[in-house]
Amino acid sequence: MNTRETLSPWQLAERAHAMNPSAIREILKVTERPGILNFAGGLPSPETFPVEAMHAACAAVLGEDLNVARASLQYASSEGLPELRQWVAAQMAKQGAHISPDQVLITTGSQQGLDLIAKVLLDKGSRMLVESPTYLGALQAFTPMQPSIESVESDFGGVSAPALRKALEKGERPRFIYLLPNFQNPTGRTMDEARRNDVIAVCREFGLPIVEDNPYGELWFESQPPAPLLARWPEGVLYLGSFSKILAPGLRLGYVIAPPELYPKLLQAKQAADLHTPGFNQRVVAEVIKDGFLDRHVPTIRDRYHQQRDAMLAALQRELGDTGAEWTRPVGGMFIWVRLPEGLIAKDLLPAAVDAGMAFVPGAPFYAENADPRTLRLSFVTSTPEQIDRGMAALAKVVRGAGR
Amino acid sequence: MNTRETLSPWQLAERAHAMNPSAIREILKVTERPGILNFAGGLPSPETFPVEAMHAACAAVLGEDLNVARASLQYASSEGLPELRQWVAAQMAKQGAHISPDQVLITTGSQQGLDLIAKVLLDKGSRMLVESPTYLGALQAFTPMQPSIESVESDFGGVSAPALRKALEKGERPRFIYLLPNFQNPTGRTMDEARRNDVIAVCREFGLPIVEDNPYGELWFESQPPAPLLARWPEGVLYLGSFSKILAPGLRLGYVIAPPELYPKLLQAKQAADLHTPGFNQRVVAEVIKDGFLDRHVPTIRDRYHQQRDAMLAALQRELGDTGAEWTRPVGGMFIWVRLPEGLIAKDLLPAAVDAGMAFVPGAPFYAENADPRTLRLSFVTSTPEQIDRGMAALAKVVRGAGR
Repeated sequence: MNTRETLSPWQLAERAHAMNPSAIREILKVTERPGILNFAGGLPSPETFPVEAMHAACAAVLGEDLNVARASLQYASSEGLPELRQWVAAQMAKQGAHISPDQVLITTGSQQGLDLIAKVLLDKGSRMLVESPTYLGALQAFTPMQPSIESVESDFGGVSAPALRKALEKGERPRFIYLLPNFQNPTGRTMDEARRNDVIAVCREFGLPIVEDNPYGELWFESQPPAPLLARWPEGVLYLGSFSKILAPGLRLGYVIAPPELYPKLLQAKQAADLHTPGFNQRVVAEVIKDGFLDRHVPTIRDRYHQQRDAMLAALQRELGDTGAEWTRPVGGMFIWVRLPEGLIAKDLLPAAVDAGMAFVPGAPFYAENADPRTLRLSFVTSTPEQIDRGMAALAKVVRGAGR
Repeated sequence: MNTRETLSPWQLAERAHAMNPSAIREILKVTERPGILNFAGGLPSPETFPVEAMHAACAAVLGEDLNVARASLQYASSEGLPELRQWVAAQMAKQGAHISPDQVLITTGSQQGLDLIAKVLLDKGSRMLVESPTYLGALQAFTPMQPSIESVESDFGGVSAPALRKALEKGERPRFIYLLPNFQNPTGRTMDEARRNDVIAVCREFGLPIVEDNPYGELWFESQPPAPLLARWPEGVLYLGSFSKILAPGLRLGYVIAPPELYPKLLQAKQAADLHTPGFNQRVVAEVIKDGFLDRHVPTIRDRYHQQRDAMLAALQRELGDTGAEWTRPVGGMFIWVRLPEGLIAKDLLPAAVDAGMAFVPGAPFYAENADPRTLRLSFVTSTPEQIDRGMAALAKVVRGAGR
């Protein structure tokens, strides 16, 4: 009875059926009740944003030289601002990774780097590997290209080298493994020197490329993390970095460092994706950082997050120490990962936790497969030590109540 | 002799082989010689950028209320800033398209809108239609998803309705047709009221959805263009708009207006692509435009471009009027499309033109198929009338020389 005109004319691509609303975003809606002590978010603390420096930089870019102002508002190169590309190369050199500025592609947040990598490296059905658990935003970037995503067994030190070897001994060679070695989102865990070497050795032996994501690496508390994987295997690692956690995420400024053979394809994908990352933002950030501003600013973020982590570890020990719950002890970053006592399911506990006045994120959505339903993620960076104390007490009440 | 380790570990996705360096970018390199009168670019005039208003808006966002400043630098919603989504809906209503702000997705330039549409609507081998010629950046956004792109015969009034009908009477239903109805890039042509109605009638009859791209619509010279296609078939049109030509492209701020059934998928693709468009840029632009700034500013751009178009049309008539060359007479936008006398090939003429002191873009790369090698594109917006006079004289010298 329908004529063609009354039917929808739109037909979705097959990959669109693989896209789903973020489970986390749906969960976060539950936590947005006013007055809730919120440990569920993944946001950096807005108190760390250098508002005055940004204000001064905008004034310098727009208010001094009309040619500079106009250039910052015009179309720009897809590769990114030379000053930023040089800065990235200099920063990496300090960490033992010697790359050329020509290998740096400025992206619209490092999330865009993940999207470009997926486009350039993943076919439908391509095998690829991730840690267990892994960053949810990466799964969302990879999924639309319809790869077959496989989890490699991981422990509190990151991905397991023997498990990785086992995965590589059978089946086709994966396109890459996605790793987040420093203060991982969601677990807070870090790969130590020995683990990095073991994993790199297996990857080199089997010719398995690595996508190394490092948004949190600068947020260390007592000592710098070991050298990046990129420094250990320059031709086999694609590296992602970001200004979101050391300046501000609302600028959407990140970067990819690519081996020379991959760079042109990523650049072409970048051109097609958004022509270039906003030149105005690049120019303003170059102005902010040009005189070593980050050398003074980042330590203040480290100090703040360090105190907050200490408060949360102490509160967890005090409140949950005798419940059988376990948690990570991150040496940097923003997150602690908790595993509830046997028999409890984090997702089922969330409504009671919200009623008790606190919110966390259940861990299950962070697993590509074989989710552990007892896990949950806590962010310690947007709450005061006092709020952390109250929040962990509320969590403990719920855990004890559920355990009875 | 090679061990696995000495071979590249990287394997490209099939779609990466379909990505190619922009032919235009390669050509533009030839034209970057200092002192060249450059009509090859696609950039708006930097003299139209509202530097002072931007400066004041940045100061207002960052220097008045600390909470506003911090919010502008924090992660933001993927949909976009409510103030901008409301502004877009209000602007569209003035043009007869009544949409809800909920249908507006703010994008990182309208190029990103094209990328998201490609991801959500195109499978490998999907049939899709474009005008002839068409916007090169759209071809670059669609190509990585490996559709089968088919050109529909077009004339100086845009795509031909009878040709479109003919294309639809055979073969599978295309996923969509991509149209740029106002002052098209590259030709400068506009679809008039009758053509719009004819094309919409055919699209409705065959259930062919439309992607309507309108970056230049506000740049009219004497009268507003006819109502957008969106106003004529709300459920069958995806509409793309941009702040690049009315404020500044370096902000990378555009938008997609989607039928409610498509919006969630585009939003999910947006989240995966870059989480959200820089919130800082959105907040600053909302501040710039909030008191009707564009109602005062855009007319100054129109006046400027109008004079430049007049100068170029007069110079073309004077210099090339008797050569057999033809050209469009755009009633808005930034470009004039020239068809050289029979026997001449624009690409072959370019080196001589550059030697004579001027540059254009050959038209062939703008065709998805059946390129007309006699065509070329001239931008009139970044040169003064006096430069236009000299440039067209130089072009004429080369055309006459080649014709001899």
